[in-house]
Amino acid sequence: MTVYIFEFIGTAMLILIGNGIVANVVLKGTKGADAGWTGISLAWGIAVFSGVFISADVSGAHLNPAVTFGLATAGKFAWELVPGYMVAQVLGAMMGNLLVWLTYKKQYDATEDQGALLATFSTAPAIRSPFWNLVTEIIGTFALVFGVFYIAGGTVSDEPIKLGALDALPVALLVMGIGFGLGGPTGYAINPARDLGPRIMHAILPLKGKGSSDWSYAWVPIVGPLIGGALAALMYMWIGV
Amino acid sequence: MTVYIFEFIGTAMLILIGNGIVANVVLKGTKGADAGWTGISLAWGIAVFSGVFISADVSGAHLNPAVTFGLATAGKFAWELVPGYMVAQVLGAMMGNLLVWLTYKKQYDATEDQGALLATFSTAPAIRSPFWNLVTEIIGTFALVFGVFYIAGGTVSDEPIKLGALDALPVALLVMGIGFGLGGPTGYAINPARDLGPRIMHAILPLKGKGSSDWSYAWVPIVGPLIGGALAALMYMWIGV
Amino acid sequence: MTVYIFEFIGTAMLILIGNGIVANVVLKGTKGADAGWTGISLAWGIAVFSGVFISADVSGAHLNPAVTFGLATAGKFAWELVPGYMVAQVLGAMMGNLLVWLTYKKQYDATEDQGALLATFSTAPAIRSPFWNLVTEIIGTFALVFGVFYIAGGTVSDEPIKLGALDALPVALLVMGIGFGLGGPTGYAINPARDLGPRIMHAILPLKGKGSSDWSYAWVPIVGPLIGGALAALMYMWIGV
Amino acid sequence: MTVYIFEFIGTAMLILIGNGIVANVVLKGTKGADAGWTGISLAWGIAVFSGVFISADVSGAHLNPAVTFGLATAGKFAWELVPGYMVAQVLGAMMGNLLVWLTYKKQYDATEDQGALLATFSTAPAIRSPFWNLVTEIIGTFALVFGVFYIAGGTVSDEPIKLGALDALPVALLVMGIGFGLGGPTGYAINPARDLGPRIMHAILPLKGKGSSDWSYAWVPIVGPLIGGALAALMYMWIGV
Repeated sequence: MTVYIFEFIGTAMLILIGNGIVANVVLKGTKGADAGWTGISLAWGIAVFSGVFISADVSGAHLNPAVTFGLATAGKFAWELVPGYMVAQVLGAMMGNLLVWLTYKKQYDATEDQGALLATFSTAPAIRSPFWNLVTEIIGTFALVFGVFYIAGGTVSDEPIKLGALDALPVALLVMGIGFGLGGPTGYAINPARDLGPRIMHAILPLKGKGSSDWSYAWVPIVGPLIGGALAALMYMWIGV
Repeated sequence: MTVYIFEFIGTAMLILIGNGIVANVVLKGTKGADAGWTGISLAWGIAVFSGVFISADVSGAHLNPAVTFGLATAGKFAWELVPGYMVAQVLGAMMGNLLVWLTYKKQYDATEDQGALLATFSTAPAIRSPFWNLVTEIIGTFALVFGVFYIAGGTVSDEPIKLGALDALPVALLVMGIGFGLGGPTGYAINPARDLGPRIMHAILPLKGKGSSDWSYAWVPIVGPLIGGALAALMYMWIGV
Repeated sequence: MTVYIFEFIGTAMLILIGNGIVANVVLKGTKGADAGWTGISLAWGIAVFSGVFISADVSGAHLNPAVTFGLATAGKFAWELVPGYMVAQVLGAMMGNLLVWLTYKKQYDATEDQGALLATFSTAPAIRSPFWNLVTEIIGTFALVFGVFYIAGGTVSDEPIKLGALDALPVALLVMGIGFGLGGPTGYAINPARDLGPRIMHAILPLKGKGSSDWSYAWVPIVGPLIGGALAALMYMWIGV
Repeated sequence: MTVYIFEFIGTAMLILIGNGIVANVVLKGTKGADAGWTGISLAWGIAVFSGVFISADVSGAHLNPAVTFGLATAGKFAWELVPGYMVAQVLGAMMGNLLVWLTYKKQYDATEDQGALLATFSTAPAIRSPFWNLVTEIIGTFALVFGVFYIAGGTVSDEPIKLGALDALPVALLVMGIGFGLGGPTGYAINPARDLGPRIMHAILPLKGKGSSDWSYAWVPIVGPLIGGALAALMYMWIGV
């Protein structure tokens, strides 16, 4: 049970800081609106660092169903733990976004732009095109999960791969790089829990004047990252080093 | 006595760099006005790094009454040292802000905006709402102190927790993340000494055309962080890992 | 063969993140246009970090013909491996840019500015002047390769020099510094593969309304970095420490 | 002799990247004008990192007469080496700025603003006031040298203090913090060699339409840092831990 708790905590920390910076940039009446994409990319990387650092020693710090799925695909993580990890990640993301909402409550009340409100929860594409948005999410997540395999240092064997606290910085830098470099088209979910949990919270929370939770797009940041994670696992196994 | 001196020094360094960047951004006649929220978040994190790195080996580098209170609540820091640490932190913060004032003396003289002048000392909310501002400070400080427990690496025992020099970077990154992600509504005091000490200096120093020191708000960045730190301690003890 | 595969992979990761941030900043319809030069310099450094971290343990992470050439010149890398490394680097850069194009497909379709389209592939000078552009590339690459010698920690002997995973951060910071400090005039190729591979992709890919691949400039970011790398090797040998 | 060569090299690298970013931001016809104060603060910190990392193992990486003077004052560095170190630092700074000029030659030719031209060499105050500018330089350098004592980890004894390669990151972060937080009034020389060497180069180099080298201000960034460094040494000795 403890591993699930730490996946919950780590993912909550990830979303609290990560969607916090989005709220800071896009909501009305904040101090950080000028932080822009540089602030968003840096802060999401730091969010990963914080979540991984806190949870790594206990749960191995996946914080992301695409990582969990990728590791399991490569035989580096037990399939029977996969459902529990994924549920903990989605619940943690929901909790994290609940805290973002409480932190920025007055700013939420002051904001009328429905797109901005939704952006502090889930991702949306800059140019809507389900196929190409999916491609973007696949490539971004591939880069992440492929990197995780080598950062966590496993060779191809039956030993499980776990991220440790010392892996927090390399993974965080990788996510910063993905944010800067690959986040432009879709806002880089690269993590089904990061998108689905907050989207559920958007549907649940009593936001004044909120619009649609855009469920028609919700499958892209779920399916894309899972495909990307699995492809990274296959590539890792194919390389075999 | 030496531990108090290093809490004083570390907190002075924290405020010197931290409120220095605020002065650089908001006062008239500086070179760094364009650094904005990205600069503020990065520099406050670096300020934490510098203060912690210098003081950690001697005092354990709390630099923050909410950290001291949280650690003591969890039984990881001796209660009899708490008052001395807190006094040293507030005095250190005053000294740090005195140095900011001397560094930017001509810029202070050139600035007429009373809000900008006060901002280089203590925090102020973007949207004033004592209850929600308190919530923001509680959540931000909870994230900080909860992180400190796991960064400093203590398991739940009677052993005291101390930050070491190697913990400076993780804590600094966490504070950067809190600044980017949670600093938007209140300017993230997340530290009673960081707000109270400078507010006292604002009241004392002969600033030309200064306005109110806004004492009616002063309780929020004291009470909020203390609650947040205590909640983090309770959560840490409840998790028990 | 494995070393070539990891040179290919590392360079592909380098270009994916590195030219990804350029695409994010200069193409139409992205989310990160405001990241600007700060984002570009930070992200290219992180791109180096990611590429080096993943490939270092296997191939020594040159990812750059100027590094390969410089190390070989100093007798720290076997000449018979040089051609294979360079081919792998150019092919990796092509693959990386192919992925950038797929990631930003809709943004490429939406962009009409031929200079912006080319900028997401290869470098171009801010003020065209082949001689001085060459000087800029020589100096920038000299700084990089000279730094690599001391970061990788070799003394002047017959032992080969390899970058390890722990060298990824110093090299990445050095490249960030070169981007900020020396990238202004030419967009800092400082790497023949980083410029040539993508320029070939620009010529190959069916970009709507693309202009010239500017082959007349292509020799500058090839010759300049090779000269800079060789000069760094000579200086390193002359110093002899 | 080798130690002097590495002080020369390290300081040249410091100025090459550091004044390179200033050139990138203030000259005409560069790609990085939007990097602003955030870019300048980050890049000067990275410049320190690069210079320290390369030279630390040989010379102890002072790269700054104020550091040399402070260490000698505290009895942690041999007085007989002081003149040689200082000369090497000033010459290294001149060499670094010569390379900046060559890197940005076409941009220098395109720039008519005499203040911008001088800014790529030596510092100038935002608001001229010799006394207060001196105070700013004293406080900034005090923060730097005081930090160096604790980062380099010496206790008060007769053992010399040397910065090692592992100290490069903490010192670099401290300098980033000083840039963000204390650089606003004077552009933070905090290093006599960083200001004097480049000012000499400004006087020597055949810059088109260059104005005065502003020698009347030149004593401030020499005297201020030396006082700050000495005060840090006295404080360090007085604390005695």
